[in-house]
Amino acid sequence: MSTKSRGSNAERNLIHKFWEKNWAAMRSAGSGSNHYPCPDIVASNNLRKLVLEVKLTTEDKKYFMDKEIEELQEFANLFGGEPYVGIKFFRKDWVFLTLEDLESSGKHFVVTTEIAQRRGLSFEDLINC
Amino acid sequence: MSTKSRGSNAERNLIHKFWEKNWAAMRSAGSGSNHYPCPDIVASNNLRKLVLEVKLTTEDKKYFMDKEIEELQEFANLFGGEPYVGIKFFRKDWVFLTLEDLESSGKHFVVTTEIAQRRGLSFEDLINC
Repeated sequence: MSTKSRGSNAERNLIHKFWEKNWAAMRSAGSGSNHYPCPDIVASNNLRKLVLEVKLTTEDKKYFMDKEIEELQEFANLFGGEPYVGIKFFRKDWVFLTLEDLESSGKHFVVTTEIAQRRGLSFEDLINC
Repeated sequence: MSTKSRGSNAERNLIHKFWEKNWAAMRSAGSGSNHYPCPDIVASNNLRKLVLEVKLTTEDKKYFMDKEIEELQEFANLFGGEPYVGIKFFRKDWVFLTLEDLESSGKHFVVTTEIAQRRGLSFEDLINC
């Protein structure tokens, strides 16, 4: 299976988790020719709105470009939602971090397995916090 | 230009209108293999959440299948948003209708230019109502 297919499958699996808990969630079409900020997933219920940038990796760290994080924050500000990044490390469950919990290394932010373990929220934490 | 391209262009134009007014909006990737309800567009600000099924047409009427409307309602209920259908008739501005304003004809709902003119909201009405 290609990396892209694995990524799409992982996103669909996450969408499924939200619906199981009675949240409505959807994947974005990508920003396309509009060039507006666009998260990977939005999920909401009557109380909260989550705006997610999600990635999976087989490495022990994952990078988010500064621009990705800025756009996620910008979208979340206007949308009135809570921005999170979600990472699925190989054979692990999804973990989620607030943007404050990301560590900057200049041009990008990095999430290591160690950071994820220390600061990451599980899916259940995410929807119940 | 193909019908599909015209449809995508019209959707992007609508996304643009929301951003111009400081709403964050995004197009969905479609329900894909998940089979969960999925609107065409969600748009939100700090006060409101809109969930939109949108179509354009060169005819003087447009149909929405019962299933589309049911799924839009279901998504909106869980998402905690307001469901609307949007129609762009040829060379006209977008008009928006609440689901209560659609007329059922058994297996589908129909929006004619006449219904749109009588009950439809302009984009400005939609975001200010």
